[in-house]
Amino acid sequence: MLTRTFLFMALLIALIPLNSAYSASPDRYSDFFSPLSRRADSLKNPLNPPKVTLGKMLFFDPRLSRSGVISCNTCHALSTGGVDNMPFSIGHGWQAGGRNSPTVFNAAILGSQFWDGRAADVEEQAGGPILNPIEMASTEELAVETIKSIPGYVSLFKKAYVNDRDPVSFENITKAIAAFERTLLTPSRFDRYLSGKKGGLRSDEIKGLDLFVSKGCAQCHNGMGIGGGSLQKFNYGSDEGRFNITGNENDRKVFRVPSLRNVERTYPYFHDGSVWNLDQAVKIMGRKQLGTELSDEETGLIVKFLRSLTATRLTIKLPVLPPSSATTPRPDPHWSPEPIENSPVETPTESETTSEPAAEQQQIPSM
Amino acid sequence: MLTRTFLFMALLIALIPLNSAYSASPDRYSDFFSPLSRRADSLKNPLNPPKVTLGKMLFFDPRLSRSGVISCNTCHALSTGGVDNMPFSIGHGWQAGGRNSPTVFNAAILGSQFWDGRAADVEEQAGGPILNPIEMASTEELAVETIKSIPGYVSLFKKAYVNDRDPVSFENITKAIAAFERTLLTPSRFDRYLSGKKGGLRSDEIKGLDLFVSKGCAQCHNGMGIGGGSLQKFNYGSDEGRFNITGNENDRKVFRVPSLRNVERTYPYFHDGSVWNLDQAVKIMGRKQLGTELSDEETGLIVKFLRSLTATRLTIKLPVLPPSSATTPRPDPHWSPEPIENSPVETPTESETTSEPAAEQQQIPSM
Repeated sequence: MLTRTFLFMALLIALIPLNSAYSASPDRYSDFFSPLSRRADSLKNPLNPPKVTLGKMLFFDPRLSRSGVISCNTCHALSTGGVDNMPFSIGHGWQAGGRNSPTVFNAAILGSQFWDGRAADVEEQAGGPILNPIEMASTEELAVETIKSIPGYVSLFKKAYVNDRDPVSFENITKAIAAFERTLLTPSRFDRYLSGKKGGLRSDEIKGLDLFVSKGCAQCHNGMGIGGGSLQKFNYGSDEGRFNITGNENDRKVFRVPSLRNVERTYPYFHDGSVWNLDQAVKIMGRKQLGTELSDEETGLIVKFLRSLTATRLTIKLPVLPPSSATTPRPDPHWSPEPIENSPVETPTESETTSEPAAEQQQIPSM
Repeated sequence: MLTRTFLFMALLIALIPLNSAYSASPDRYSDFFSPLSRRADSLKNPLNPPKVTLGKMLFFDPRLSRSGVISCNTCHALSTGGVDNMPFSIGHGWQAGGRNSPTVFNAAILGSQFWDGRAADVEEQAGGPILNPIEMASTEELAVETIKSIPGYVSLFKKAYVNDRDPVSFENITKAIAAFERTLLTPSRFDRYLSGKKGGLRSDEIKGLDLFVSKGCAQCHNGMGIGGGSLQKFNYGSDEGRFNITGNENDRKVFRVPSLRNVERTYPYFHDGSVWNLDQAVKIMGRKQLGTELSDEETGLIVKFLRSLTATRLTIKLPVLPPSSATTPRPDPHWSPEPIENSPVETPTESETTSEPAAEQQQIPSM
């Protein structure tokens, strides 16, 4: 299947009259790319306004983490391209994750989720970080108990899931978050270009686009996501990728192709977040994936095109979260799955957390 | 001075005809409270739109922390009443602070900053958490180097500080953050009541207000902040308060009176964040500060009044932060001031952070 796609793309590339690039209409790339839709609908998770509102609140709510500190937005920060710009995100107990956090922007339109594509869609993905002990470190039971204890959430769940007898379930929590994520689509100037509208690409960016296609980048980075549609081998670093999930030899070093939308803002790059510079990332991709040494000039033009994929406007109102109640489980930042000697997470005794403020042990007072 | 204020307030209380409470005009409380102003101006830090815009971006920017993880908004979260709802905030390396994080909402109108009043205003306060090794763990030099490396910030600083030759300074960083904080004022239904407008207090809330004044709460919780105007002794917990700063015996257990605006959302309460329930906090204050055992009914009415101090509307647009450049210092979450045995912050070796993703050591993969 991948081979067939490759041949089809190679044929298309061969047919493109490259010398007519600057006057050519964007139509000639319509087999590679399509403009972003307004939102990503889902039959299994139909969107409605209360569900999206609810999902936005949950996305920003650190009470979905056991510590009370980490929300979806901590690692997928909507102020910074939907990522945290860290090589590996910092989670519960200051533990570092094992792969670079992908952007949440436009994630809903991609063919699969996570670097190894192990989740089919954002609905499947959304629960992962909540339950991961090194990320938000919660459980399905704790998350549901927490949300059920917050009256403002209970009434919103009833509105979002009118036909459910017990609307506050872990599945409905993840569906609401996913519903919000399905609205996080970020049109760019490239979409204006593809739609033939004014304010599209400038001439250097069109040169970059032409190189992006002619050099072969668009073999994988294509579609509405400009990536995200397929899994490909990327022999880079020590991570075995999808092989860790399937145990299938063909999946060794196989990763989901990332979307390049907002790539200017989603540094550092690759599954291990090892490359900070977009020019360098492009050159590595040329060498590793296409067997091509891209010149500085070619790289610069491709990067100019890539910068046109940045969201043009982005207006997100910060939600106001409903307050906890007397029955809401308290934040537990010092929770640890099992006491380990020399553990990075210290579990203080009750007296340490309540009676003896740490300020007295600190030279510089806080707050 | 405090004694004179006390006598003046006591005299005022004696003069209030309590039995006429429900029909009485809000004017009779005009000596205690005043409606919130639209913003808190400052001669030493005059507000202008680019400075406020810049300050908002800096407030949300985790690059002001050494780890790249913690922003002002981490502990003073604008989605949750300007606090993090933790007893003690979690800072660099998952270290816990020593005092409960006060709300940033309406902080600018208060007479002093921090629980011990050691900063005069938000300008003096704003740099504290950035430099505190257990909070954002940065330095003045690192913060300035970081901001100077981000072109989007440099141009905004030039606009915000037109007369400065070198506009990106640590002082101007803190002034911009403070300028944003000076706009974070949250009018409530109580302000409508004080202004004689419709949509003010309901009858039970007015009963609660009457009790709040007649029982003596308003002796300290008064003014535009409904608190925040004075320092008072509060013999609660082991924290010595202002004494730790001045060494003056008169300052033992002395704390700044907190503002009660948005108190419904700023749990857990007191400098040590030891009380989660607002009813309980009110009863403790009655007992400790006023020598009064408040009945459940009285407490309930006072709490109803306190809930009227919650912001009625709050619309904050999430800022889009300018991307880093090649010269921006990289996030350093594993930085530690000095290696300590059994330290809660582990400092991994280079190979651990780059070549061997932690996912391989984890049963549950991340991202």
